[in-house]
Amino acid sequence: MPRYALKIEYDGAPFAGWQWQDDQPSVQGAVEAALRRLEPEVPRIAAAGRTDAGVHALGQVAQCDIARDWEPFRLSEALNYHLKPLPVAITAAARVADDWHARFSATERRYLFRLLTRRAPATHEAGRVWQVKTPLDIDAMRAGAAHLLGHHDFTTFRSTICQAKSPVKTLDEIAITEAPGFNGPEIHFHLRARSFLHNQVRSIVGTLERVGAGSWAPEDVKTALQARDRAACGPVCPPHGLYLAGVGYPDDPFA
Amino acid sequence: MPRYALKIEYDGAPFAGWQWQDDQPSVQGAVEAALRRLEPEVPRIAAAGRTDAGVHALGQVAQCDIARDWEPFRLSEALNYHLKPLPVAITAAARVADDWHARFSATERRYLFRLLTRRAPATHEAGRVWQVKTPLDIDAMRAGAAHLLGHHDFTTFRSTICQAKSPVKTLDEIAITEAPGFNGPEIHFHLRARSFLHNQVRSIVGTLERVGAGSWAPEDVKTALQARDRAACGPVCPPHGLYLAGVGYPDDPFA
Repeated sequence: MPRYALKIEYDGAPFAGWQWQDDQPSVQGAVEAALRRLEPEVPRIAAAGRTDAGVHALGQVAQCDIARDWEPFRLSEALNYHLKPLPVAITAAARVADDWHARFSATERRYLFRLLTRRAPATHEAGRVWQVKTPLDIDAMRAGAAHLLGHHDFTTFRSTICQAKSPVKTLDEIAITEAPGFNGPEIHFHLRARSFLHNQVRSIVGTLERVGAGSWAPEDVKTALQARDRAACGPVCPPHGLYLAGVGYPDDPFA
Repeated sequence: MPRYALKIEYDGAPFAGWQWQDDQPSVQGAVEAALRRLEPEVPRIAAAGRTDAGVHALGQVAQCDIARDWEPFRLSEALNYHLKPLPVAITAAARVADDWHARFSATERRYLFRLLTRRAPATHEAGRVWQVKTPLDIDAMRAGAAHLLGHHDFTTFRSTICQAKSPVKTLDEIAITEAPGFNGPEIHFHLRARSFLHNQVRSIVGTLERVGAGSWAPEDVKTALQARDRAACGPVCPPHGLYLAGVGYPDDPFA
């Protein structure tokens, strides 16, 4: 059975997350329903990142096995046709080796978190950014973020329901940039690691927002990290500013 | 009665346009309803541009007269509170002279049209861009647009229901730029004039898209303009890529 890699973009708002659930709409369920329009008996699919309810993706990657040999572009077109009108799009498809796995072959996950700072409520970008009403000190947030870079026990920044075997992860990048934004000035957090703990990005961004607002000093992030205690974390920020931006593999299947 | 200028941002999707209508939701109706929460007898408001159904605004400007003397920022905050959850936001408010008029004092209107070029359906940007599935030749569109710059009879690019006294207008700017875009490469059309005819921007962009796609030569735009005949226009493009970006006044009331 030929295996395909799918690059998937979605707006997380109408979904209870990536993962299939019995009684809730999921992105996985939507893609599997589109696949079943092509082949009724298609097996369950797997993705690189199981995004939570409300979290978006620009470059989620999933794998699927289909009996028929599809030309990859035609497969993406057929799936997009059947996904309408849901806000889910297959932006690329590729044939991959039978032992390639969207999740286990991945060596890098990249997340983007968009934060809008302005007083008036967002209109066009509502639901696509986390809005904070006051300006934030970006240099202070960068100084706080620097303490998180590298190999650490991230227990503080991990949800209590996280199922990862170890809280030790290596954060390879945490960059904070300013972007003009369509509804006002945005702050973008770019995080990159081999893998992340559950709620790790939202726990980190929520904590750094406190630093930007002046409630926390940058060094308080180091103290929180070293506490290895979930109670030391700042507030977890909402899901609708978060995007799974991309997934890296030793050989990019879409190249 | 003190007069105020309001800068208004909105997503046009849920509205039948700016202008108040008896039986349809309108942006004017939404802002007036919010004003009536402050003062039940507030008079009808007027705006610089009467945007059509589905057209967005980043910087619409309207005037309102209120009996009570409001501090402008507090007025914008109160209106935003009452506008929730509609995608309409007052992004600035200012006290203006009693003879200042949002529409008649305006000396410049600026429009932005966003066009997304990619094959897969847009997700996050759906409803905020006009999506075209094939790449467009930007240099050809620029060459076509150059014929429209300046003082012309724009009968070709004017809807048949346009109520302007004269079809002669001066187009002061028509710039076409490339932007990375959040869901893929975008082409932005920036148009600036003292005033526009009904459907002028959408008629121009729809025609230029035909040039970009290669169906029209750039010189065909000149021929169409000189025909002074609505039938010579290219297809009028959809409203959901169009934004009233800003309005200019001899003295910026929000400066």
